[in-house]
Amino acid sequence: MAATAASSLQMAAVRPCVSTSHRAVKAGVAFVAGNSKKASWANLASACHISSVQPLHRSFMSSSVKLDKVVTKATAESSDSKPVSGLPIDLRGKKAFIAGVADDNGYGWAIAKSLAAAGAEIFVGTWVPALNIFETSLRRGKFDGSRVLPDGSLMEITKVYPLDAVYDSPEDVPEDVKANKRYAASSKWTVKEVAESVKQDFGSIDILVHSLANGPEVSKPLLETSRKGYLAAVSASSGSSISLTYIASERIIPGYGGGMSSAKAALESDTRVLAFEAGRKHKIRVNAISAGPLGSRAAKAIGFIDTMIEYSFENAPLQKELSADEVGNTAAFLASPLASAITGAVIYVDNGLNAMGVGVDSPIFKDLNIPKSKH
Amino acid sequence: MAATAASSLQMAAVRPCVSTSHRAVKAGVAFVAGNSKKASWANLASACHISSVQPLHRSFMSSSVKLDKVVTKATAESSDSKPVSGLPIDLRGKKAFIAGVADDNGYGWAIAKSLAAAGAEIFVGTWVPALNIFETSLRRGKFDGSRVLPDGSLMEITKVYPLDAVYDSPEDVPEDVKANKRYAASSKWTVKEVAESVKQDFGSIDILVHSLANGPEVSKPLLETSRKGYLAAVSASSGSSISLTYIASERIIPGYGGGMSSAKAALESDTRVLAFEAGRKHKIRVNAISAGPLGSRAAKAIGFIDTMIEYSFENAPLQKELSADEVGNTAAFLASPLASAITGAVIYVDNGLNAMGVGVDSPIFKDLNIPKSKH
Amino acid sequence: MAATAASSLQMAAVRPCVSTSHRAVKAGVAFVAGNSKKASWANLASACHISSVQPLHRSFMSSSVKLDKVVTKATAESSDSKPVSGLPIDLRGKKAFIAGVADDNGYGWAIAKSLAAAGAEIFVGTWVPALNIFETSLRRGKFDGSRVLPDGSLMEITKVYPLDAVYDSPEDVPEDVKANKRYAASSKWTVKEVAESVKQDFGSIDILVHSLANGPEVSKPLLETSRKGYLAAVSASSGSSISLTYIASERIIPGYGGGMSSAKAALESDTRVLAFEAGRKHKIRVNAISAGPLGSRAAKAIGFIDTMIEYSFENAPLQKELSADEVGNTAAFLASPLASAITGAVIYVDNGLNAMGVGVDSPIFKDLNIPKSKH
Amino acid sequence: MAATAASSLQMAAVRPCVSTSHRAVKAGVAFVAGNSKKASWANLASACHISSVQPLHRSFMSSSVKLDKVVTKATAESSDSKPVSGLPIDLRGKKAFIAGVADDNGYGWAIAKSLAAAGAEIFVGTWVPALNIFETSLRRGKFDGSRVLPDGSLMEITKVYPLDAVYDSPEDVPEDVKANKRYAASSKWTVKEVAESVKQDFGSIDILVHSLANGPEVSKPLLETSRKGYLAAVSASSGSSISLTYIASERIIPGYGGGMSSAKAALESDTRVLAFEAGRKHKIRVNAISAGPLGSRAAKAIGFIDTMIEYSFENAPLQKELSADEVGNTAAFLASPLASAITGAVIYVDNGLNAMGVGVDSPIFKDLNIPKSKH
Repeated sequence: MAATAASSLQMAAVRPCVSTSHRAVKAGVAFVAGNSKKASWANLASACHISSVQPLHRSFMSSSVKLDKVVTKATAESSDSKPVSGLPIDLRGKKAFIAGVADDNGYGWAIAKSLAAAGAEIFVGTWVPALNIFETSLRRGKFDGSRVLPDGSLMEITKVYPLDAVYDSPEDVPEDVKANKRYAASSKWTVKEVAESVKQDFGSIDILVHSLANGPEVSKPLLETSRKGYLAAVSASSGSSISLTYIASERIIPGYGGGMSSAKAALESDTRVLAFEAGRKHKIRVNAISAGPLGSRAAKAIGFIDTMIEYSFENAPLQKELSADEVGNTAAFLASPLASAITGAVIYVDNGLNAMGVGVDSPIFKDLNIPKSKH
Repeated sequence: MAATAASSLQMAAVRPCVSTSHRAVKAGVAFVAGNSKKASWANLASACHISSVQPLHRSFMSSSVKLDKVVTKATAESSDSKPVSGLPIDLRGKKAFIAGVADDNGYGWAIAKSLAAAGAEIFVGTWVPALNIFETSLRRGKFDGSRVLPDGSLMEITKVYPLDAVYDSPEDVPEDVKANKRYAASSKWTVKEVAESVKQDFGSIDILVHSLANGPEVSKPLLETSRKGYLAAVSASSGSSISLTYIASERIIPGYGGGMSSAKAALESDTRVLAFEAGRKHKIRVNAISAGPLGSRAAKAIGFIDTMIEYSFENAPLQKELSADEVGNTAAFLASPLASAITGAVIYVDNGLNAMGVGVDSPIFKDLNIPKSKH
Repeated sequence: MAATAASSLQMAAVRPCVSTSHRAVKAGVAFVAGNSKKASWANLASACHISSVQPLHRSFMSSSVKLDKVVTKATAESSDSKPVSGLPIDLRGKKAFIAGVADDNGYGWAIAKSLAAAGAEIFVGTWVPALNIFETSLRRGKFDGSRVLPDGSLMEITKVYPLDAVYDSPEDVPEDVKANKRYAASSKWTVKEVAESVKQDFGSIDILVHSLANGPEVSKPLLETSRKGYLAAVSASSGSSISLTYIASERIIPGYGGGMSSAKAALESDTRVLAFEAGRKHKIRVNAISAGPLGSRAAKAIGFIDTMIEYSFENAPLQKELSADEVGNTAAFLASPLASAITGAVIYVDNGLNAMGVGVDSPIFKDLNIPKSKH
Repeated sequence: MAATAASSLQMAAVRPCVSTSHRAVKAGVAFVAGNSKKASWANLASACHISSVQPLHRSFMSSSVKLDKVVTKATAESSDSKPVSGLPIDLRGKKAFIAGVADDNGYGWAIAKSLAAAGAEIFVGTWVPALNIFETSLRRGKFDGSRVLPDGSLMEITKVYPLDAVYDSPEDVPEDVKANKRYAASSKWTVKEVAESVKQDFGSIDILVHSLANGPEVSKPLLETSRKGYLAAVSASSGSSISLTYIASERIIPGYGGGMSSAKAALESDTRVLAFEAGRKHKIRVNAISAGPLGSRAAKAIGFIDTMIEYSFENAPLQKELSADEVGNTAAFLASPLASAITGAVIYVDNGLNAMGVGVDSPIFKDLNIPKSKH
């Protein structure tokens, strides 16, 4: 019953939290707006939503269903059509599911934040074995420092779904995995089941992010997984899917382990195939971001990440470290209506390293006076 | 002295207007938040603009100063550092020079609008022979319908510079061109001179857009032009340059005329070379947008543009017409800090057509039941 | 015993012939230098072949070992170092293993023939379930018409190995497959075992061709298979590996089934990774051929091959059907010392179709007068 | 009449030789068929050549017409259709024009040799200012060591045409160039005129090689030049065109000077456009070779060639110096019927360097134990 208790605790924690953060949003918007005396649109919208908060009846069998009913964040139907000032990446009213968030320091987290900053409601899929610690950390506020959005509010995660994207449906799960303590503590974590749960819980999602960095998950073709599962959850019109890939798919990066370069190549190919299939049938756009090296926990498992960070610094056109936000913001752009004519694309967010034909820090070039920034 | 006087007038006009618009911006956001009673910034800004429209006294000596009086748009210094709500493409305080705007229906115009919507101040370079009609139309309000930004305000163009990008400096201009009536009516329209004029007039620019669609200008290597001229005008830190290219550089598009495919291939190569050079020396990012066919006036000169629009509709993953805004918004994103790790890239904004390996509307595929949208 | 007898016949044929042809080759080279009075090697070799049929004694236990001892074909040691006239693709003295030959009408067969024409000794790996019919057809002369080389001689296959490239080693084979009648009739058909058998039988191979067209074999990453198995069989210096891929990896080809485009993308990525690994360690070159559609039996299984043949005819720069020989000859070139600086490459042998940006037979282009050949 | 006299002298030298070699060729081909008693063509030909070296007295007015009448080399009509042994790159009976040969140590020369080895008759176009020294060296036997073909014979150059590919036709030549002493000494050296001369002299050519390495020639679009000039000289059916390009077109190579990367990008694009146009109209195939760095005289003019050779050695999958023959042999393959389905392609002949995503000799990777060959 530990799980249940924990969930209830979470619930309890979440509820007041939601209203609090709502207030935070109010404040945030008021800030910028400066001197309005009226309740902000955000407040009104949420207030309107608050009335829909209802008791959570979760299954004892399905510890994964943490929140049956969760308040959607700031989706103001009426004001959506109003002219807005500036050129915002506007994802208000959109639901985003990010598969592959297990901590607060990888691309998945950064993408979630950028989407949240743009107004999307956030759902995440967390690798089953990492679920407990992720949820605990989230509840206990350990990620609070990382949850701060540009407007000062904290990113809300509406719901965390346990997920193991290696398995499409329950039939695919081997007995030993089912029996595994950490897996047995959760349920409905195969791709299809998560998709169904999301649908049941919230109707459908608009933005799907496939941020599974590595491990066995990464070597599974995106095509089949998406066809069978993920896309079922994406709403039928003008949704968007984004995956993360790496240049090793296209060119030789010695040390990038195992079959990961093959897997990323397959993912890029799948991105195109899906862009056509989902584009034609459902107007869903499918893109990939080829991100440079980031010292996240997942990436570090590859083993040579620090080396690649330094290599990029010395050799890329832009000599600076890549921030996870840069990937997150690109994802938000791609997911938004502003990118409505971009599909089937691989966008490099890597300080331009992919465009290099040589490594300029080669000792052989030492007399060429290749310009470089100061460290 | 007409020019000087005019400039002073401009100053005068600008100042109060700007402060008004500053207030307007504050209000504007509140607006978006829902229920401000203040006049919107948009309204104020345009109102301000309208009042500042004055007869143009242009110098015969300095024909480049086409508009005596132009109001700079809403660049709120004080609020720049404040946290903003949402995830805006924020170009407030940035100066953008768009080379290749000669009417209100091409990519150049759309990019100018998106940059303006994001808060940038707009300067354009207009092909010398098209200058007169462009400026006249602008002054007489013929473009007003096309100047409407998402927030309802009208895009302001701070200054229109005559430009013929075929010529780097006055020494390159043949006598017959110099003698040509339309050229003789303007001055300082070679690349170097325009760059110098901009520098003198406004300090430096932050965003350079190279939107010269075709004609002799397009077959001139971007590399040399940019090295010698354009980049001199870009501010020394974290500027951004964007060019327009076309898939014909990479793959065979029968009917795409003359040497234009070669020119676009050279431009894409130059984009990478410049990304390195300018990135290393000045942290300037250099990217290109490979845009699908748009029925603009310039493009129509190619002769087969309508055909390509229809082909794209029938064959792209996304079956819709490409809007110029989609290219404009992507340009605004690339120019913004959100894209700070993207350089040396060619971004396809073409409904995904570039990713196709076949034309699916081939009569040969008629029995394959390839999914298609309804027209 | 018909099979056995037939095989023996073939064997016997080879032996005396070989010594003759050895002389013939020597002579042949001498010819070129100028003054042999002998009949040409080509004539002798073919003549020899016809007369030389003799009994084969093969093992009853190991149906896979079709030929216990086989004499290498026409490899004139002494003359190898002599200057030859012309610019031959010269694979004399090289052993080539082609994985994925199951009939006489696919790329595998054509590659085998080109390699044989260039002087290589041929070994093939045949999918286990297809082994019996392939060997029977071969023995009974059903493929004789297809075995004719440019010089009039018949291609010899030194040995046919049963192979199921889905399985790296015996541990990977599920019980039901092991129990399957057709699999049980053969042995040692996992990748590792075949590599070991080849090594034991003939020392090592110089040329490895991975011509597995589709089915489950194709969705298996080449990288792991090659690392664990194939490359073990390639000789330690200056070997060459060639795989077949398809443009669907790089661009959208609706109708190219299932996960095959992903698999081909992975294969192309693996080609690069292996080119580095095997190049550095063993000077082995690794390339891939991206072949256009050929109406082979294997390809037809995909279902839309005829359609693609017609599409290619209507849309490629070269309007002709692709012949399997064209792929075979390119493979022979890539495997030869003439291509000693080509590695990690994907070479398109497709009448140029990959370079097209549009389908020119679109009804939309009907008035463009795009040049076309007469059917 | 100096020209005529000179030509006659040369002619005289050539003629007997030619007829001998004709017989030799017949014999040579007969050889392969089996039973010639004659000395080989190769021996005769070289012997002949040696004896025919004589002073050239060329006309000041018509220096371009070097040889009034030249007999085609080795084209054995009757034997062409006979089966040949092995898998030869067979260019017998083909006429090849290589534009851009000015010494005996670049890719142009190596390509000429490979084509000659494969049986083609060789014509070269030499940059006007380099013509005198090239012809003198050729006549005086200074290149004889470099003329040796694999079979021991010496490559013959049927005719050397002065060429300046910067100019399409006489109208394009500025007065100062016309007046230049070195240019005035020759005539008919614009592209169109050379094409016409070749046509008049020899009917048509089958293989066109565009090996202009750098300088102003390289920045001229291949497309226009080829359309207006070169292709006029290529025979109307199944000809082949090959150009040399460099990876700097596709990726950043700091130090690759000026606009050369743009020019190469344009050339690669033109290769595709021409592949379609010439393929459709005349079944001519058009390809490019992207060659790695070679320490030729022309390349050295770029200034950083030695550096790139060393960089390639340290970083390419194959750690060896690139030999010009490797490029030559690939050109011969591409020009031959064996490559009849390859068009619009860029083939990398660079030891695989193009496939690298990083420079592995970066000091940052020093602890990664990346495998390397012994120097």
